[in-house]
Amino acid sequence: PLQSKHDDRSLLFADLTQEEYLQVRQYMLRQKDLGISNSQLAKPSDNFLFLIELSLPKKVDALAYLDNKGSKPTREATVVVFHGARGYIREYVVGPLPNPKYYRDVTTERHKTELPINARTVTIGEYALLFQFFETEVFSKLERLMKESFNVDQQKKLNAFEQMPRGVRSGDRKTWVSFFRDMAGMYIHPVGFEVLVNHESLNASSWKVERLLYNGQYFDTVEDLKQKYDSDSLKKIVYKESPDYGSLKPRNKPTEIGPQLFYPKGRRYSVRKNHVLYMDWSFAFGLSSLTGMRVFDVRFRDERIAYEISVQEAMSVYGSVTPGMIITKFLDSSIGIGRFAHELVRGVDCPYEATYVDTYRYIDVPVPVLFRNSICIFEHNTGQPLRRHFADFFHNSYGGMVNNALVFRTITAIGNYDYMWDFIFYQSGSVEAKVHATGYISSSYLVNDNRKHGHQVAEKVLGNIHTHFIHFKVDLDVLGVKNIFETKDMEYVNVSLPWMPDRYAMIPQLVEHQLKTEQEAALRYNTKTPRYLHIASNKNNRWGHHRSYRLQVFSFTGDHLPESQAEERAMSWARYKVAITKHKDTEQTSSSLYNQNNIWTPAVDFSKYIEDNESIEDEDLVAWVTTGFLHIPHAEDIPNTVTVGNGGGVLLRPHNYFDEDPSIHASDGVYISP
Amino acid sequence: PLQSKHDDRSLLFADLTQEEYLQVRQYMLRQKDLGISNSQLAKPSDNFLFLIELSLPKKVDALAYLDNKGSKPTREATVVVFHGARGYIREYVVGPLPNPKYYRDVTTERHKTELPINARTVTIGEYALLFQFFETEVFSKLERLMKESFNVDQQKKLNAFEQMPRGVRSGDRKTWVSFFRDMAGMYIHPVGFEVLVNHESLNASSWKVERLLYNGQYFDTVEDLKQKYDSDSLKKIVYKESPDYGSLKPRNKPTEIGPQLFYPKGRRYSVRKNHVLYMDWSFAFGLSSLTGMRVFDVRFRDERIAYEISVQEAMSVYGSVTPGMIITKFLDSSIGIGRFAHELVRGVDCPYEATYVDTYRYIDVPVPVLFRNSICIFEHNTGQPLRRHFADFFHNSYGGMVNNALVFRTITAIGNYDYMWDFIFYQSGSVEAKVHATGYISSSYLVNDNRKHGHQVAEKVLGNIHTHFIHFKVDLDVLGVKNIFETKDMEYVNVSLPWMPDRYAMIPQLVEHQLKTEQEAALRYNTKTPRYLHIASNKNNRWGHHRSYRLQVFSFTGDHLPESQAEERAMSWARYKVAITKHKDTEQTSSSLYNQNNIWTPAVDFSKYIEDNESIEDEDLVAWVTTGFLHIPHAEDIPNTVTVGNGGGVLLRPHNYFDEDPSIHASDGVYISP
Ligand SMILES: [Ca+2]
Ligand SMILES: [Ca+2]
Ligand SMILES: [Ca+2]
Ligand SMILES: [Ca+2]
Ligand SMILES: [Cu+2]
Ligand SMILES: [Cu+2]
Repeated sequence: PLQSKHDDRSLLFADLTQEEYLQVRQYMLRQKDLGISNSQLAKPSDNFLFLIELSLPKKVDALAYLDNKGSKPTREATVVVFHGARGYIREYVVGPLPNPKYYRDVTTERHKTELPINARTVTIGEYALLFQFFETEVFSKLERLMKESFNVDQQKKLNAFEQMPRGVRSGDRKTWVSFFRDMAGMYIHPVGFEVLVNHESLNASSWKVERLLYNGQYFDTVEDLKQKYDSDSLKKIVYKESPDYGSLKPRNKPTEIGPQLFYPKGRRYSVRKNHVLYMDWSFAFGLSSLTGMRVFDVRFRDERIAYEISVQEAMSVYGSVTPGMIITKFLDSSIGIGRFAHELVRGVDCPYEATYVDTYRYIDVPVPVLFRNSICIFEHNTGQPLRRHFADFFHNSYGGMVNNALVFRTITAIGNYDYMWDFIFYQSGSVEAKVHATGYISSSYLVNDNRKHGHQVAEKVLGNIHTHFIHFKVDLDVLGVKNIFETKDMEYVNVSLPWMPDRYAMIPQLVEHQLKTEQEAALRYNTKTPRYLHIASNKNNRWGHHRSYRLQVFSFTGDHLPESQAEERAMSWARYKVAITKHKDTEQTSSSLYNQNNIWTPAVDFSKYIEDNESIEDEDLVAWVTTGFLHIPHAEDIPNTVTVGNGGGVLLRPHNYFDEDPSIHASDGVYISP
Repeated sequence: PLQSKHDDRSLLFADLTQEEYLQVRQYMLRQKDLGISNSQLAKPSDNFLFLIELSLPKKVDALAYLDNKGSKPTREATVVVFHGARGYIREYVVGPLPNPKYYRDVTTERHKTELPINARTVTIGEYALLFQFFETEVFSKLERLMKESFNVDQQKKLNAFEQMPRGVRSGDRKTWVSFFRDMAGMYIHPVGFEVLVNHESLNASSWKVERLLYNGQYFDTVEDLKQKYDSDSLKKIVYKESPDYGSLKPRNKPTEIGPQLFYPKGRRYSVRKNHVLYMDWSFAFGLSSLTGMRVFDVRFRDERIAYEISVQEAMSVYGSVTPGMIITKFLDSSIGIGRFAHELVRGVDCPYEATYVDTYRYIDVPVPVLFRNSICIFEHNTGQPLRRHFADFFHNSYGGMVNNALVFRTITAIGNYDYMWDFIFYQSGSVEAKVHATGYISSSYLVNDNRKHGHQVAEKVLGNIHTHFIHFKVDLDVLGVKNIFETKDMEYVNVSLPWMPDRYAMIPQLVEHQLKTEQEAALRYNTKTPRYLHIASNKNNRWGHHRSYRLQVFSFTGDHLPESQAEERAMSWARYKVAITKHKDTEQTSSSLYNQNNIWTPAVDFSKYIEDNESIEDEDLVAWVTTGFLHIPHAEDIPNTVTVGNGGGVLLRPHNYFDEDPSIHASDGVYISP
């Protein structure tokens, strides 16, 4: 039974409605001094309205409102404008919603510095120019090569996939673009042709090809390549039709229907607007176009457990011999993680019976866009007991309870990869944030049979080694915002046995520590860290122990990029398995929209949150959790990586938070006596 | 659709039938020279028929038969007799089944040494004598204390729970027994009374109380305690009624029905005798009374992937100040793991619609015992895609497949704890062995508020810190028995960028090694080990890579007992995260029935399998995998530990074994084009 009621205060965290997006857009377009365009094909030299998003309220104001101690915070939007005409990026706060009356430039307030225009994400407008550039400056000049090597002609094209970062130093916007067969799953169909385009200039007519790679050979200009090709003074690629191994069409016809979930007595959870109730749980939800899904004001039995749990970043570092992936370091929140939360397919992505929620987004578009069924919510029968005991010796009996849990899910298909994001709410008071990867791997054309950077997965195709690092923000509030960070572990202590004092034995003992500063609590990779990590209150449970939630991290990450590398600061959060900081509204995210394209001077360097080494004793604490896995692609990644074994996450578990397991009060309990 | 046919050759691995148990028992009882008793209340001084189990065929013979190259191996049973009258334990092989004509003493052949009688498991017969001993030698002499402190009288008793090992050196059989309130979940109701009983003698009349602990105070004799109690010269416990917090009765009435699994078109797997078919999979199964569940001849598309995957041991090391748990080290296979695979409850332990299988066992009983519904098998809809990709840029389309997998499960309630064991068969060719813990924690009476060894979880009750170490045997046979052990990982290499050679960058590179001897491949805790571990064939897949299965271990273990401790050799398998040995029929298990009660001179010391440091190049390899978790009990372990977060396992995944993901051929695939 639902233990609490829906509450419209959740709307504090609701994404903008279609109407709100339109109002904000119109208001900004009306500001003639800003000279903003919202054309889908705005040029880099235009002032382009790139993004409209909810601007989160200050936490102190939000809590006052939620806890009946303050009025409703003003609802505001963040607007990002790529001011191509002026050479910078600006962030504006616009409010109040739904009828804006003011805008305020918050760029330096939020980022302490100006945002150079080259830090911007490549827009659809810029892509259109890039594709046109390739057509006129590359393809049309290499007709014979294109036809003979790749069967490219007026009808048949190649597809492009770009390497990031775009260069090697601040100010660079030089992108290696690799070309792929125009087939399903093009990411695993590289043809062996890569082009370095310099598109630093805001004026596309100044763009130029700086280098080309063809069949493992480098050329300075298109003309150079053409001349050497025509004179047969290079190793040629001769076109060969490729099997359609990237297709996801089932090779066999469906013949049967597998097991299905059904709700014999209807749904046991409730979704109203952006508020969810499930058993003892309640929470508000949203979906940032940039960072992805998030929940707020997560409560169990009406007691707030977490203020925010959110996806922060998905980062990958690749290895290769060819430039198309040699220095690739993807920072997905700079493209937008939530942006790619597309429609979920019933019966595959989520159960048929799930509740599907529509969302609206405004990112790199002229009008707000509806994404139908882009969030799913369902109660899942995990097929195993949450707890059970069979007593055969004394008090012969059985007690147990099946593990039914609520799943909150989005899946974001960011180019080749699909990340499945789950927040799972268990009846034992645990919440889990989980990620799994599926979709297509990135690959490169196999040159000289060089397999130092991965495994061959198809004819002339190398699946490149890469890391997946995922970052979650976990702002637990355990009995209010004033918390401490405690660790627990075991150690063996040599102890004299009380009934035979001459005899010693090594006995496990509990070791507890409180870590009191941000730097102490920044738990680095490759260091031994305590096994139990707790965000705790100074208040005790009935048995005299600090009430706490434990963070249990599931992770298979590879090595983090060495700190010697200039690009590392843009992903410095990945240095830590877990880091604890003092909450600040100005430290809302661990990455930023600008980290990818200005990776050498990142707008957010997470390690700076820790540099001031603040006290984390009786403060509002935020836990930042890194998970992920090392991916050495193999033949079974063709056509798609499977979710099984390719994931990670963090489980937030009550640890002396309650006086007993709360699930003993659940209505799913079963008891059998002889 | 099922891809292969049932095959009665699976019966090679089938547990004994009721009739076979009876035949073996009768045959052994007829051997007058052995003088065997099968009385349930056989005394330690009797020759007691303790165990009848399947004796596994030699692997070479089994493979010859399975692969049509040899005749059916003779079916035999192992019989364990505790020869109390003669002072030793003997293992016999009895055959041929079903009509035995011979028996053979295999004790020294299997164990290289005699098995002393004190290495035996405590039988129900011995427990009966122990309980009687406590009644006459302790309780009846302490009537006043018992009544005043614990409300014990003729109607109301205390329950006993014993510490193991039984002493501190070879030959010891001195057991600390702790007493608990006779209530549901007695394990979390300690009263503060513990007694050390010396039951080394095979003659119960020689047993004696060696020490007593009452409310934290030690006494040499019952008389001493009684005298000090009666003269008020000790700190007394005054009886107080205890709330029924150990009860598993739901605190609220069931009001609703949760989500259920159903099979709209019937079951898509088939179970015949001990043989299972599911999609591309087939396997045989069995349930050893000692080690628990196991599968054999595991095939995917009729190709054998594993000869055996089996549970080996469940071990725990506890910490405490009081003797009732201070030196406790439980080795469950010495009591019998599979022995406690009781009836599974429909809708809680497994879905209603699962297939339930009955088993027969013969361990510490006078007749074979039927365990109804003690194994369950079901196809589970995991509620998430196995793989999916949504293409929005090019070739707009969607392909995906829900992750339906077959679960093979038993749950063993060994005293306080319930372990849930799952083998899961995925359509992507992976198999997973998983364990979760639930049931009651062990606890001790809180003395002097000493919480160095855990957390208080109820009035005067300390939940004691302990480790869970679980051992799995994974005998993969990748394209036959001749395999190698390979590791893969990443490393950053400083590389000159090909298009700007003056510029260097750290690039991830693939690092592969073959480990060639058992000692190289014994991967110890607290050492850095490669992230990818592979049992591989020298044969290549289509793309020129060794066909292999990768072992991915999920583990949260605590620290292993230091090797300085005499008891460590009996659990030396827990030194290693993963160890690879050359297969031997004589190294069937990593622990033994005799390791618990003769822990200082264990019949099986796993580290010896590695000591001879054999070559593991092109040999039949066995992977031994350790998993588990550190358990620091907390209030939410009352009344029962929950499965969520309390588990571990190993995923066996194809890695270049196939030429592509086999699930692309599955009938559950879904494809949507625009
Ligand atoms: Ca700080
Ligand atoms: Ca907080
Ligand atoms: Ca060996
Ligand atoms: Ca093998
Ligand atoms: Cu990957
Ligand atoms: Cu435990």
